[in-house]
Amino acid sequence: MLESPGAPPPHDSRQADTGLPVSVPSTALFTDQYELTMLQAALHAGTAERRSSFEVFTRRLPEGRRYGVVAGTGRVLDAVENFRFDEQMLGFLREQHVVDERTLEWLAGYRFRGDIRGYPEGEVYFPGSPVLRVEGTFAECVLLETVILSILNHDSAVAAAASRMAVAAGDRPLIEMGARRTHELAAVAASRAAYIGGFATTSDLAAGFRYGIPTVGTSAHSFTLLHDSERDAFTAQVDSLGSGTTLLVDTYDVAEAVRTAVEIAGPGLGAVRIDSGDLLLLAHRVRQQLDDLGAHGTKIVVTSDLDEYAIASLAAAPVDAYGVGTQLVTGSGHPTCSMVYKLVARAEADEPDAPMRPVAKRSMGGKSSAGGAKWAARTLDASGVAEAEVVGSGEVPSELADRLLQVELVKGGEVVGREPLEAARERHRAAVAGLPMSAMQLSRGEPVLPVEHR
Amino acid sequence: MLESPGAPPPHDSRQADTGLPVSVPSTALFTDQYELTMLQAALHAGTAERRSSFEVFTRRLPEGRRYGVVAGTGRVLDAVENFRFDEQMLGFLREQHVVDERTLEWLAGYRFRGDIRGYPEGEVYFPGSPVLRVEGTFAECVLLETVILSILNHDSAVAAAASRMAVAAGDRPLIEMGARRTHELAAVAASRAAYIGGFATTSDLAAGFRYGIPTVGTSAHSFTLLHDSERDAFTAQVDSLGSGTTLLVDTYDVAEAVRTAVEIAGPGLGAVRIDSGDLLLLAHRVRQQLDDLGAHGTKIVVTSDLDEYAIASLAAAPVDAYGVGTQLVTGSGHPTCSMVYKLVARAEADEPDAPMRPVAKRSMGGKSSAGGAKWAARTLDASGVAEAEVVGSGEVPSELADRLLQVELVKGGEVVGREPLEAARERHRAAVAGLPMSAMQLSRGEPVLPVEHR
Repeated sequence: MLESPGAPPPHDSRQADTGLPVSVPSTALFTDQYELTMLQAALHAGTAERRSSFEVFTRRLPEGRRYGVVAGTGRVLDAVENFRFDEQMLGFLREQHVVDERTLEWLAGYRFRGDIRGYPEGEVYFPGSPVLRVEGTFAECVLLETVILSILNHDSAVAAAASRMAVAAGDRPLIEMGARRTHELAAVAASRAAYIGGFATTSDLAAGFRYGIPTVGTSAHSFTLLHDSERDAFTAQVDSLGSGTTLLVDTYDVAEAVRTAVEIAGPGLGAVRIDSGDLLLLAHRVRQQLDDLGAHGTKIVVTSDLDEYAIASLAAAPVDAYGVGTQLVTGSGHPTCSMVYKLVARAEADEPDAPMRPVAKRSMGGKSSAGGAKWAARTLDASGVAEAEVVGSGEVPSELADRLLQVELVKGGEVVGREPLEAARERHRAAVAGLPMSAMQLSRGEPVLPVEHR
Repeated sequence: MLESPGAPPPHDSRQADTGLPVSVPSTALFTDQYELTMLQAALHAGTAERRSSFEVFTRRLPEGRRYGVVAGTGRVLDAVENFRFDEQMLGFLREQHVVDERTLEWLAGYRFRGDIRGYPEGEVYFPGSPVLRVEGTFAECVLLETVILSILNHDSAVAAAASRMAVAAGDRPLIEMGARRTHELAAVAASRAAYIGGFATTSDLAAGFRYGIPTVGTSAHSFTLLHDSERDAFTAQVDSLGSGTTLLVDTYDVAEAVRTAVEIAGPGLGAVRIDSGDLLLLAHRVRQQLDDLGAHGTKIVVTSDLDEYAIASLAAAPVDAYGVGTQLVTGSGHPTCSMVYKLVARAEADEPDAPMRPVAKRSMGGKSSAGGAKWAARTLDASGVAEAEVVGSGEVPSELADRLLQVELVKGGEVVGREPLEAARERHRAAVAGLPMSAMQLSRGEPVLPVEHR
């Protein structure tokens, strides 16, 4: 189901994905300039090849949130694989004097040959969880900082909002329809993240094309206004799209529109959409009216600036599906995740087998962090519910060996952690189900698991 | 200055822009599915060719904001020009049964042939300002809704935040460095919008490559931690990049780092960057120390979760430049603009020369809007300061004829409104300078101009 038959098979080669319109041939310039100037200076100093471990983590969750959601991992793998400097890019860097010739030469041969481990996509995380670890030479790892953070910070923010909305919606399907509220390509990634977080479908055709997410559509007020009457508009839509279509009933008078809709489509009308007004009140009224008209199977879809709280407030209303836009794609108040990419360990010296040394920023100001490459495990209580996130940097205690969270994603430069989007979605569902019940509360609170440092 | 010598000349043909890595060959799938199903139904009903006027506007500014900033217009023109359905896309739509064969055939020949007028890029706007008007057949206009809104909602949100930050920063330059906090392609558009809003430079290489925005870089804590001492790190950086470089001084102890920095680079050191701690206090201390060391020309760059308020609070501190990330790319609390794309007028009948009729949604719920295609003018008081935004839908009063805000952007499908990015930036500077002084207040307030409807 998740393959788009019309699209080329994704990831079938080391070539840049040409699954237009939402891929880009190279990700190498989605990079802050200082990554390249640091590379130049390290090449000059002879320190560029020092073995290094970088880790991605957050120092905190957005205020009041109970858990974070890892999303974007699959896109990170694409980005790493397609991180190459072609002649045109090198020409730009040369003309702009961004780096020197020696560095340009090094960049021309760049391919990431290191290792990446991390929380699998869809997994939940907490403050300090080592979400991703990138290991290799300093040079090859530092270049990936910006694009990895861009992807994880954006996608995880959307997935976290989606997850809360999915909790609030319960068994009712959520439709992602936020494309018009965010950058056109961020929208495609947002659809993907929302799907992982529990959304069922998207309105965004590019997301269907690129990621095989099921697409849906209803109609807009403009369609009704184009026609001489609402009756004409409904007739046009039902004639062309069938009685299973969704008719928009709030352009003029809702009660009259519902009456007209059932008259034209018959009691087999697929659904009606309400996009304004008091949704709680209207949903009850419209359901009653539909039932009175014998349209017991006609569903009610509501849209109109919904967030997780509005969705929850409609739990007792006869609503069959929620369409969510703005609040989803903007992370419901938290459009980014504050993930950072920090050097946590590096070789003592320049020899390939030099021992690793933990490193960390130490100045005042609250931005210090623990050094050393870290493992993470989630412990369970007697009833199998998650109890704590345990993070450590030495040997893994034997009792935690089968509770480790990180998985191999890239090994020696080869992507080994590719998986279908469906797997991340299912993993997320299972991860949330395994958390204490308070994870489901929408109210503000502390992270639902304590993080223990070993 | 704003052309990237290494990049191909943008917009030199009707071909999709291949200025990698940040263009996409077609924008046609950045579209909500319902645009296509509405098209199908309208083709079926014979109403698809009715002449229509769609307008983009907002019903309100984000709470407390004094003005909005139009940004993204140049990207809209690219998107309209590159909105074509190729075989692969049509194949996808066919396989997924999104629309019928007749509609696919229509889409295969799609090119926008209508007209677009709007506020020029960089101009300010207010609630109800008719920011963009798209005219043509219903069919050709309705398809553009999603991608136009995506671009304007995102880019204008970032530009509005940038503009406030630029007001707060006064003559001090602002560096855009938010790439890691937002989607990797949204980041490129954000750099562009920030530049229009008054930022001077960006850290994002793709933004330099694609839009010719000047790029800059400093260095990260990881570079210091890679080396055996801060002294080694600074030496490596200065040796390779010259004494004009910017050294990051808050990895360990700021005072010691500043001492070491000047010792290594000499008093000609370009700048130091402070990325944590009490920036106000540290800026004063570091300035004093630099001056004591004879490094009077060494600049101080501050970064660390700055927003317009933090920037304003540093106005009296000896700071030379601000680097801004998260709060810029997330619109400083308002990551989207709530612009809508509404059918405001359409032909009475299906004949090409049928008169136009204003249309508008009329149901309860606060989403109704005024029908009719609108003009807009900005009136000035006796001293030449903007006084009101006048919006009307009939004849333009003669006294307003030379104060009209909208310009031609697309005429008969041909883009006529292309301009250098620098023009939008300069226009924005002039537009803000022409507003009443209260526009400059960062505190919450009403829109700085009243909107009068004629």
